[in-house]
Amino acid sequence: MVYDAGHFDVIVIGAGHAGVEAANAAARRGAKTLMLTLNLDMIAFMPCNPSVGGPAKGVVVREIDALGGLMGKVIDKTYIQMRMLNTGKGPAVRALRAQADKPLYIQEMKYQLEQLEHLTIRQAMVERLMIEDGVCKGVLTETKAAYYAPSVIITTGTFMRGSVIIGDLSYESGPNNQRASVKLSEHLEELGFELVRFKTGTPPRVNARSIDYSKTEIQPGDENPSHFSYETKEAILDQIPCWLTYTNETTHEIINNNLGLSAMYSGMIKGTGPRYCPSIEDKVVRFHDKPRHQIFLEPEGRNTEEVYVQGFSTSLPEYVQHEMLRSISGLEEAEIMRAGYAIEYDSVVPTQLWPTLEIKQLPGLFTAGQINGTSGYEEAAGQGLMAGINAAANALGIDTLILDRSQGYIGVLIDDLVTKGTNEPYRLLTSRAEYRLLLRHDNADLRLTEIGYELGLITEERYKSFKEKCALIEQEKVRLSKLTIKPSQELDQKLIEAGGTGLREPIKALDLLKRPEVTYSFIVSLYEETDAIPVEVQEQVEIQVKYEGYIVKARQQVERMKKMENKAIPNQIDYDAIGGLATEAKQKLKQVRPLSVGQASRISGVNPADVSILLVYIEQGQIAKRSEPII
Amino acid sequence: MVYDAGHFDVIVIGAGHAGVEAANAAARRGAKTLMLTLNLDMIAFMPCNPSVGGPAKGVVVREIDALGGLMGKVIDKTYIQMRMLNTGKGPAVRALRAQADKPLYIQEMKYQLEQLEHLTIRQAMVERLMIEDGVCKGVLTETKAAYYAPSVIITTGTFMRGSVIIGDLSYESGPNNQRASVKLSEHLEELGFELVRFKTGTPPRVNARSIDYSKTEIQPGDENPSHFSYETKEAILDQIPCWLTYTNETTHEIINNNLGLSAMYSGMIKGTGPRYCPSIEDKVVRFHDKPRHQIFLEPEGRNTEEVYVQGFSTSLPEYVQHEMLRSISGLEEAEIMRAGYAIEYDSVVPTQLWPTLEIKQLPGLFTAGQINGTSGYEEAAGQGLMAGINAAANALGIDTLILDRSQGYIGVLIDDLVTKGTNEPYRLLTSRAEYRLLLRHDNADLRLTEIGYELGLITEERYKSFKEKCALIEQEKVRLSKLTIKPSQELDQKLIEAGGTGLREPIKALDLLKRPEVTYSFIVSLYEETDAIPVEVQEQVEIQVKYEGYIVKARQQVERMKKMENKAIPNQIDYDAIGGLATEAKQKLKQVRPLSVGQASRISGVNPADVSILLVYIEQGQIAKRSEPII
Repeated sequence: MVYDAGHFDVIVIGAGHAGVEAANAAARRGAKTLMLTLNLDMIAFMPCNPSVGGPAKGVVVREIDALGGLMGKVIDKTYIQMRMLNTGKGPAVRALRAQADKPLYIQEMKYQLEQLEHLTIRQAMVERLMIEDGVCKGVLTETKAAYYAPSVIITTGTFMRGSVIIGDLSYESGPNNQRASVKLSEHLEELGFELVRFKTGTPPRVNARSIDYSKTEIQPGDENPSHFSYETKEAILDQIPCWLTYTNETTHEIINNNLGLSAMYSGMIKGTGPRYCPSIEDKVVRFHDKPRHQIFLEPEGRNTEEVYVQGFSTSLPEYVQHEMLRSISGLEEAEIMRAGYAIEYDSVVPTQLWPTLEIKQLPGLFTAGQINGTSGYEEAAGQGLMAGINAAANALGIDTLILDRSQGYIGVLIDDLVTKGTNEPYRLLTSRAEYRLLLRHDNADLRLTEIGYELGLITEERYKSFKEKCALIEQEKVRLSKLTIKPSQELDQKLIEAGGTGLREPIKALDLLKRPEVTYSFIVSLYEETDAIPVEVQEQVEIQVKYEGYIVKARQQVERMKKMENKAIPNQIDYDAIGGLATEAKQKLKQVRPLSVGQASRISGVNPADVSILLVYIEQGQIAKRSEPII
Repeated sequence: MVYDAGHFDVIVIGAGHAGVEAANAAARRGAKTLMLTLNLDMIAFMPCNPSVGGPAKGVVVREIDALGGLMGKVIDKTYIQMRMLNTGKGPAVRALRAQADKPLYIQEMKYQLEQLEHLTIRQAMVERLMIEDGVCKGVLTETKAAYYAPSVIITTGTFMRGSVIIGDLSYESGPNNQRASVKLSEHLEELGFELVRFKTGTPPRVNARSIDYSKTEIQPGDENPSHFSYETKEAILDQIPCWLTYTNETTHEIINNNLGLSAMYSGMIKGTGPRYCPSIEDKVVRFHDKPRHQIFLEPEGRNTEEVYVQGFSTSLPEYVQHEMLRSISGLEEAEIMRAGYAIEYDSVVPTQLWPTLEIKQLPGLFTAGQINGTSGYEEAAGQGLMAGINAAANALGIDTLILDRSQGYIGVLIDDLVTKGTNEPYRLLTSRAEYRLLLRHDNADLRLTEIGYELGLITEERYKSFKEKCALIEQEKVRLSKLTIKPSQELDQKLIEAGGTGLREPIKALDLLKRPEVTYSFIVSLYEETDAIPVEVQEQVEIQVKYEGYIVKARQQVERMKKMENKAIPNQIDYDAIGGLATEAKQKLKQVRPLSVGQASRISGVNPADVSILLVYIEQGQIAKRSEPII
């Protein structure tokens, strides 16, 4: 007997990395939010690697933080190691990565959510959606509880018809022996959603006690660890190292000899795996002339002996995993605690979504995270945040948010998904962002805090301190632009030592800073009387001044892009009526239903010629224009 | 394809409270041990109340500790509150109880086990046993891994064909949405084991934020918290209170109005539930004239808002749970985070076990914990410990251990189970122990450390400090027996103030201590020069001296019992050949196959007349005698 279990503004199904951000964002916007999960003890569980961040992904974590999300705050409280990657390279590719204490991460995330004013958390298995007049009205659980809400967000990760595969064994299961979600998946299929089968995998975990670290290379954390959240004040100094080792020809031989037993190669796995996170058997096959692959040994927490074998994802039978591992230096006696496995699951073809992550054919329903065909905790979290923001908007009639490709990696991610779709689990890469010099790790707050504040996701206190930071940056740039530095023997010597040349005539400090060999601290060292300004302000001044030329150029490109992006395509457009459009373009445009000419131009199969025709058609006003976007 | 995954001495299936103690004990005895569990993140998970100890159960925890077990040590490191119960009553019923931090308890237990030298921990689902010539030889997992060992211990708790029931909903599941273990249960049935269906239940959990504690009574922890483990040196002083509230007539009316919807009363539940841990609907029905029942609100940890509603176990539909809860003072706005549910599961009829917990019909196979028909974490842990000790004995050919009813609650528990069986989930109670004055909370170390040391479970260091404690107790008793206390006005005044009478003539301090109004600290206060002796020694001296008369009497009863207990019954006895035995007695004796006449006398259906006939038969030597017990 179905009963009325309560009325909410937003319901979030799932409490993984997408679900928790969705619930947090919706609740912080004031929406009465319900988050349903199968197991309250597995909130924000990391079923795969014990780390957060890295190239592109780390920037997403900061973007999430700038928009009031949780991932950055929680990892900052629970990491066992923090490292800034690519410090020798330009600011666009610098990336922060943290090793997480998995059990602590779960606890801290759960605790943060439990304290959120507008959020109710409940353990439940959702089986169906409730739909009225073609609009999603709520969800129905297996206990026949009917929860009502104008916005529902599905964030089921790999649980939908999850199937775990090791060697020739396959069984219905979510990750780590959790119950799979079967009925919801069947229900979405009945509703006519296009689902696709993806797969991902995870490596074995071993007991630290059985590792000979002396045969590996230590990978310590940074001495002065940075942090993800702009609110974090204190670093965790007691860090734990990771360790690096390598596969070798023996490992590869074992893998090659057993390829027939791999679920991947025997044809047992139907789903498509992530190209940028391949299994070790994939790597050995694809790069058959590479004599070795890196293997990182990463502790799963501070108070555990479990160690994650990064780079060694596999679905080979357990006994082969055992043999493979033991061929590796340092792992000769390794004891497996959990075997690696592949998991197949249903995901939603993301071209069915608006850029708000609402499903086009079912208003009120949003999807976010791995269910949309992505891979990675950060990609999931970023989508969760955006779905939470927009689900609250839909429920409360407040502002929606769509980030464009110049505003954040989150914008790139979602635009790619809803515009191009993906035929394999999608992972963010620095190379996917055409404006990556603007989408830096260091300026996520400058890009997004204002938006977060307007949407009610950022506290007054934080906003105030953000504005102070902005003011300090500007002041310092003005100060440097006025400060004249005169040539001197001493200065010339310093400049030459730093790899530059001496000064011929007086120069403004700002201009001196543009020289490659001159850093902000170099300038400061010349004037001892200067009051110290915060490190993050120094960093910003240095980057903005040094890369000004590139940044200006990138901004010009963005302006051009925005012109196209601002050419809205009316919702009622009839592509069949447009003469001259290629057949493929018509099909794709009808499928994706882009919101702008800019988005249309990024659809694969829509050529520049089609875009021109579309532009002319719209500008000629052959259809009634709407000033508002359609959602 | 089945493959050889390794050879061990002992394999433990399951890592709940029984499994972890079994694995620890076996490994500490030097057996190469493998512990297999469905989910490494749920090791020693507490699926029900967040507490350890209490009457009888608390004594078991100390007994486990005295035998080198883990429960006491781990709870001492992870409690949020510690209380000594019944401090106003005699020493036999005093009981220590701790509120646990559930997630921390899991982590700490896992960490302790990961560091154990002879223990391998692995995530796996066991489907079958491997049997050769009627002897258990190992286990087979769902990934077709064959693990070999001469001893196997099954500790599957409520997972065997687990079925969760809420209202009219029922689904296959272990506790908290874990995968149930179905094939192993079917396999045991095929092997001809007698299984029985039991059930247990758990109450809802609510969010602390939604509780109005001002309408409840605070239950703080002790100011000077005691501890469970004899190795613990430091107490956790930052404690968190629990809260007490009550059901009322409205609550009872809601329950009565909805009884038809209760899985318990609709006939949906076939299994028998625990008498001493009834559901709230059971309490309302059975004690229909009681106007209210106690409800304790117990935090589930330090960093969580989840609160366990103790005393409110239920399998009523979720919406009824909601209504019931909200009728209670302080819970008017309570938000349920997890609903209560009942769980049915298969357990093994425990009269199929030897007192070593080995299955009679399948040598090499042991069972321990809830699978043997008990209820409670401590009962499970105590059995796990004993099964681990004896499984190691079986594998390595070293000493077995059977505790008799005078040695520990663990002895009472196992003797009850294997001798009498149980037709409902068995819970330890102080009243089950006829020698409860001997089986005190304070003397578990004095009773069992020596045994633990002989079995290799106790370190040299700990044994040494134990022997020092014993010596101090004896020294102090001798000192008090020689110390003469002379009458004085001052002393008389003190004695009268304490509720006694003055002294007429000099008296030995030991004799003065026997007076009810005189405590050990009273004696000490008379002689300021005395060096302080440790609190636990003081406590022991006081109890031993004060209760000497009772203790001596109890010891005499034990001696009489032991005479019967020492009359071993040969394994090859043919009960059918014994003239005069009643038919029921013959049946029961053949089923239980008691090891001693003492055990035989406790079998229900075996009357004193049958015992006499049995005694005569054995003493006349009508059968070949064996000097050794059969196992």
